[in-house]
Amino acid sequence: MLLRDPSLAEAGIRKIRWAKRYMPVLNELERVFEAERPFKGRVVTVAVHLEAKTACLCLALKAGGAEVHATGTNPLSTQDDVAAGLASMGVDVNAMYGCTPEEYTDQLTRALKCRPHIFLDDGGDIVELLHGPCAQYGDRVVGATEETTTGVTRLHARHAAGLLKYPVMAANDAKMKHLFDNRYGTGQSTVAAIMHATNLQMTGKTVVVAGYGWCGRGVASRAAGLGAHVIVTEIDPVKAIEAVMDGYRVMTMEQASPLGDFFITVTGNRDVITKPHFDLMKDGAVLCNAGHFDIEVDVKALRETAVETIDQRPDIVGYAQGDGRVLNVLAEGRLVNLAAGQGHPVEIMDMTFAVQALGLRYMLENGPGMAPGVYDLPGEIDDQIARFKLGAMGLGIDELTEAQRKYMASY
Amino acid sequence: MLLRDPSLAEAGIRKIRWAKRYMPVLNELERVFEAERPFKGRVVTVAVHLEAKTACLCLALKAGGAEVHATGTNPLSTQDDVAAGLASMGVDVNAMYGCTPEEYTDQLTRALKCRPHIFLDDGGDIVELLHGPCAQYGDRVVGATEETTTGVTRLHARHAAGLLKYPVMAANDAKMKHLFDNRYGTGQSTVAAIMHATNLQMTGKTVVVAGYGWCGRGVASRAAGLGAHVIVTEIDPVKAIEAVMDGYRVMTMEQASPLGDFFITVTGNRDVITKPHFDLMKDGAVLCNAGHFDIEVDVKALRETAVETIDQRPDIVGYAQGDGRVLNVLAEGRLVNLAAGQGHPVEIMDMTFAVQALGLRYMLENGPGMAPGVYDLPGEIDDQIARFKLGAMGLGIDELTEAQRKYMASY
Amino acid sequence: MLLRDPSLAEAGIRKIRWAKRYMPVLNELERVFEAERPFKGRVVTVAVHLEAKTACLCLALKAGGAEVHATGTNPLSTQDDVAAGLASMGVDVNAMYGCTPEEYTDQLTRALKCRPHIFLDDGGDIVELLHGPCAQYGDRVVGATEETTTGVTRLHARHAAGLLKYPVMAANDAKMKHLFDNRYGTGQSTVAAIMHATNLQMTGKTVVVAGYGWCGRGVASRAAGLGAHVIVTEIDPVKAIEAVMDGYRVMTMEQASPLGDFFITVTGNRDVITKPHFDLMKDGAVLCNAGHFDIEVDVKALRETAVETIDQRPDIVGYAQGDGRVLNVLAEGRLVNLAAGQGHPVEIMDMTFAVQALGLRYMLENGPGMAPGVYDLPGEIDDQIARFKLGAMGLGIDELTEAQRKYMASY
Amino acid sequence: MLLRDPSLAEAGIRKIRWAKRYMPVLNELERVFEAERPFKGRVVTVAVHLEAKTACLCLALKAGGAEVHATGTNPLSTQDDVAAGLASMGVDVNAMYGCTPEEYTDQLTRALKCRPHIFLDDGGDIVELLHGPCAQYGDRVVGATEETTTGVTRLHARHAAGLLKYPVMAANDAKMKHLFDNRYGTGQSTVAAIMHATNLQMTGKTVVVAGYGWCGRGVASRAAGLGAHVIVTEIDPVKAIEAVMDGYRVMTMEQASPLGDFFITVTGNRDVITKPHFDLMKDGAVLCNAGHFDIEVDVKALRETAVETIDQRPDIVGYAQGDGRVLNVLAEGRLVNLAAGQGHPVEIMDMTFAVQALGLRYMLENGPGMAPGVYDLPGEIDDQIARFKLGAMGLGIDELTEAQRKYMASY
Repeated sequence: MLLRDPSLAEAGIRKIRWAKRYMPVLNELERVFEAERPFKGRVVTVAVHLEAKTACLCLALKAGGAEVHATGTNPLSTQDDVAAGLASMGVDVNAMYGCTPEEYTDQLTRALKCRPHIFLDDGGDIVELLHGPCAQYGDRVVGATEETTTGVTRLHARHAAGLLKYPVMAANDAKMKHLFDNRYGTGQSTVAAIMHATNLQMTGKTVVVAGYGWCGRGVASRAAGLGAHVIVTEIDPVKAIEAVMDGYRVMTMEQASPLGDFFITVTGNRDVITKPHFDLMKDGAVLCNAGHFDIEVDVKALRETAVETIDQRPDIVGYAQGDGRVLNVLAEGRLVNLAAGQGHPVEIMDMTFAVQALGLRYMLENGPGMAPGVYDLPGEIDDQIARFKLGAMGLGIDELTEAQRKYMASY
Repeated sequence: MLLRDPSLAEAGIRKIRWAKRYMPVLNELERVFEAERPFKGRVVTVAVHLEAKTACLCLALKAGGAEVHATGTNPLSTQDDVAAGLASMGVDVNAMYGCTPEEYTDQLTRALKCRPHIFLDDGGDIVELLHGPCAQYGDRVVGATEETTTGVTRLHARHAAGLLKYPVMAANDAKMKHLFDNRYGTGQSTVAAIMHATNLQMTGKTVVVAGYGWCGRGVASRAAGLGAHVIVTEIDPVKAIEAVMDGYRVMTMEQASPLGDFFITVTGNRDVITKPHFDLMKDGAVLCNAGHFDIEVDVKALRETAVETIDQRPDIVGYAQGDGRVLNVLAEGRLVNLAAGQGHPVEIMDMTFAVQALGLRYMLENGPGMAPGVYDLPGEIDDQIARFKLGAMGLGIDELTEAQRKYMASY
Repeated sequence: MLLRDPSLAEAGIRKIRWAKRYMPVLNELERVFEAERPFKGRVVTVAVHLEAKTACLCLALKAGGAEVHATGTNPLSTQDDVAAGLASMGVDVNAMYGCTPEEYTDQLTRALKCRPHIFLDDGGDIVELLHGPCAQYGDRVVGATEETTTGVTRLHARHAAGLLKYPVMAANDAKMKHLFDNRYGTGQSTVAAIMHATNLQMTGKTVVVAGYGWCGRGVASRAAGLGAHVIVTEIDPVKAIEAVMDGYRVMTMEQASPLGDFFITVTGNRDVITKPHFDLMKDGAVLCNAGHFDIEVDVKALRETAVETIDQRPDIVGYAQGDGRVLNVLAEGRLVNLAAGQGHPVEIMDMTFAVQALGLRYMLENGPGMAPGVYDLPGEIDDQIARFKLGAMGLGIDELTEAQRKYMASY
Repeated sequence: MLLRDPSLAEAGIRKIRWAKRYMPVLNELERVFEAERPFKGRVVTVAVHLEAKTACLCLALKAGGAEVHATGTNPLSTQDDVAAGLASMGVDVNAMYGCTPEEYTDQLTRALKCRPHIFLDDGGDIVELLHGPCAQYGDRVVGATEETTTGVTRLHARHAAGLLKYPVMAANDAKMKHLFDNRYGTGQSTVAAIMHATNLQMTGKTVVVAGYGWCGRGVASRAAGLGAHVIVTEIDPVKAIEAVMDGYRVMTMEQASPLGDFFITVTGNRDVITKPHFDLMKDGAVLCNAGHFDIEVDVKALRETAVETIDQRPDIVGYAQGDGRVLNVLAEGRLVNLAAGQGHPVEIMDMTFAVQALGLRYMLENGPGMAPGVYDLPGEIDDQIARFKLGAMGLGIDELTEAQRKYMASY
């Protein structure tokens, strides 16, 4: 157990309870898990953005009989009160807000010493440790799940290089995850965080969104929904045309640099906004990142060339340039929706964590028979979660008749 | 050659010229084909909705050296003036508007007597003939392409049954096709046709869209863009939740029946709106179909139970019910955007037909070495078309740096 | 009576019947008029875009006892079949599609020889005749209504000059008229007409809307709803900022000229797009007007400088420039939604013509006691129409409690 | 001077500086004021939501020579750090967050003891005091401005009763104020506050907006822009139909009660959501108010009938009902965007406060010659502010030519 301040538990529990009220699918699974105890006697390591919603996932696993060891996945996304609250509810938690890179690695390592049977990774840090310095703790692993696009990309690269030791389910690629979490979750939480952190207007402003994957689509659509003029930059020509057809202007980042009031990177890549772009930007431009790592905006270069660093508001640092312009960076270029906001909305994570809960159960039950590799969630689990969610919303849909089923299979 | 009226050629040529002005990608391919003559000496059968845009595709193939035999794919979508115009420009055309089912089959058969090397199918009628009554004309076939979701579904069913004789490229599944044609093409052309045919208001009206595939998304988004209140019906629970998140109400067709002012089916299935639904609808409700076949709305049942049939306006028949309500059906339940409208917008078909032109070329060159089955367009051809299109729009996008490329492949 | 072809009556009657089905408010008023006969023995001149919806207005007045004399208000908006149909139903009609300016004036004059007690004007032509060459037919006039923004502007100018002889109600300024007809009516009908006439894609295209009044807002919103990138030009700085906040780019027409794929003028002014703008436009640009008169786009200048005039499609003329570019004008720069489309949607005109019907009744009853001038529709008539419409849509709204009413009047 | 904690000044100054960076119009006016000193030697009382943006207005007035006395206008909207910061910059501030009603009145009274020449009111509390218990401090008043719809409604009521002593400018009614502040300001800040306070999803949720005035339109449009399904309730039938045409469902509050996930009142009236509605709501429903006073949602009734009161999260209280449902109220039913959020975006207030600054100057210069009553801002001041704003955004618009000007004045 490694907490910033155990005395924050009560506040954390209150946050967890609030989230739980709006997670009907996970609550339904918790009831099932309590009855069936699928994780009984098994050890699970969970690396997540440690806040109220992820706490609910940990509790559902625990209800299913698991011994849960939780840790963070980003030094700025851990909420110390939730960490304390979760710990008080019987989960082993090792996570602190604002820790150093060394402390961060230490926390992950602590969460692995339990020698997990399965684990949940978020971006690939756990996989990296288990294939390197923490290899000795991975001897009981039968499978895992991965939460993010970034992590899945890395898993594929690692597997292509012949270096992946376990079967890992790409939870991110489940329809009930990426179609909603990446798109609507990142979309809402990113614009909400920017508005809250800056108190600036989005209506009528020019917002440059780098990357038109699922996350970028969500962010662009929510910014436009708030009245912003959206410019999209891409490296994929097909996605670029989709962005044009969706009503956005498309251009290179160099062309967009002098036009943007806000810049939001969601590429999963690195060096997306760099020194040459900074030089073209307007005074007062606001930069932030909603992709996994803090290397999409080259904050380091900005810091080094600034003549002054201004502590503007919580989570906003202004970098004064030699020519008088000030460029403002939110949350040091880390995930803005988590580091300067509330993270994804509760109901979105309800679906995501249903994927994770059932994905972990699937890997526990089927992992022993699977070769190392990257796997998709079986379609029927996606459908099952979707039906739970429709039920929770009180919505009915049509069922295929036998004649229709036959027709769709005819030629 | 089988035309309704060859004297309409001049009007048809004018329509073809207009379309050609707005098809920069196909024009670019035509220049390439003229230089390289990839279809030289080869016979191509093309089954399409015969209007100005498809005529341009035929002409591009002809410019590449092909002997082109064109026919229609729907008795109500052929435009007789375009058919005449295209014939006058050196293509063998067999198609007439409003022909009987028997005449329709005869026209397709005529277009196959040339014993094609490759063919373009649209919904599967050509494939069906070549696997049945016209099998003898298929002896030279090395491959084909299929234009629609419906046709691809049928190809998979046929192949699963071990009954597909050729390799067929699912042109429909190319990103540059279905992401734009099915979504934005069907979307715009469907609402445009409904507005033109009815002169009714969409703003503030309730529009029920059956099916939330690519076509349904397009239709829903355009109807909402015109101010309509959209209700989506689905049989897939995941798509149903996507529709909710996209801002639409979701319910069963039975629940939607008493609410809708307009009903639009885009499912690719049959019996989507039937007698029990008709009985619940409001007086004056308007029904139409934008899916491939005319069996999504059960017009037959409506006709049989009507106490009076009213010829309301061109392309609108009202069916008076015993209780006084009149339900109006557009274009007899056939593809409303083609039968009562102008078909897909020109620029959308420019991309679709670039997929077809390069797809046919690919099959001609590679088909002989491919086993029977359903194939995807190689990704680099999608990208090539996208880059042509970006160029035509004057838009630039970013290129990955070497460092970024490496980063994306790292783990 | 002056018709192009009385034998078209049956087709016209069919169109009128279709419209009538979707005009519940006017039908309700017709029932009231039939019972109360408020126009009994009175002569009414009605100058309108003569198509199915306006025919229904004429019939409602007739049902109220009026002797109705109808004429057109634009040489390209009269539908000859509707004119014939309406005539066959007992209205004196003087209107022909495609007439010359001299014929047009003659038709209006014929419709005034009846010496009307009240009249409905649309753009001010009737007022002009009655204050000039037709003054002798105006001796019985007690009042009038005016349908358009343009007409109301002219009335104010005429009244300011002391030259207005009658009290005229600015029907256009009624909330139930301009908030819906100008905005949603012009919006939908304009984009529908453009799509139908051109078969071009609006999605992803740049649409330049000149003027951000009620009509301009409607057009911009519908174009954006179809996926277009909208640019607004304005001369009013406040409206310009509203356009920015509504998500549109704002610039001068000179700056917009090289960017636009479509140009739509809705200013009510003249010379909005002129020679210097034409010179900057892209090849293939499409120009049209949805404002009252055909002088917003300087088609005359375009015609004079063209090296060739191309008859592209019905309602589209291409003007080839010396440098090879072709600029396409829809409907000769006349009201594109009427001249190349179906006019406003039926249900919108239902509300507009309810304003006109009750406005004419009000003027007949109150005009004798009113000084010459421009008057607003009394608010309670607006509310009455709105309540009829809500009833027709089956919608309920809240009522103020006595306590709320008091609170709103307190300080 | 009456502050919660003067030591918070530095944090407050930082907030003020941040806001100032994004208020180009007010900065421009401040430069003009510094040069012309229009308020030299005059005493101004300013009652506002005391946060960073309003502080900038006070500073601009001060730069113009005014002796400024500031106070709050809502016990929950004052930010103590900004109050301290503003005080440290030379303004007399009397305002504290979370004060009692008695303390609140005391603070307003203190801000009036200076015997102001002009004052800025926000909702009418200052006017009420100066016409009642503080009448003796109003002897030097020559005029005032009022910020809100609510305040203007009350001024009209007071004037109608013959009880208004001064000329007051309805700053709220200036185009550059209500078209932007009420619509886009309230819209963005309300949804931002709700998302931040609750961490709940708006996408796909049902949001009930009570009132479709400028504020309601803004809130509805932003909620829909975030993917919510919006229901509007109204008491005005014309506005109700506008809401339908804008794509929202319209019904009574009673009908909406069981459907809503979020309820937002923006009516300016009282008792909009009451006990009978609470009884129909879903478990977990969230209620809040963005209208001026905390009597739109009857929180008192909710409190009295609750079996338990749950402190859910900061700014959220849950009221458990006897049947197990919990209804959650944000910010005790006070202005949610101020009490639980950041208030209006900076750039919106830049325009609003330009109206106030020029309005106060106008009243100072012209008030002595004006009778008591409610006045509009002269249109040319609106235009001047709009042109400043366009300039700050770098946007150009067209100018009328002489020929166009003449045409618009012709008949």
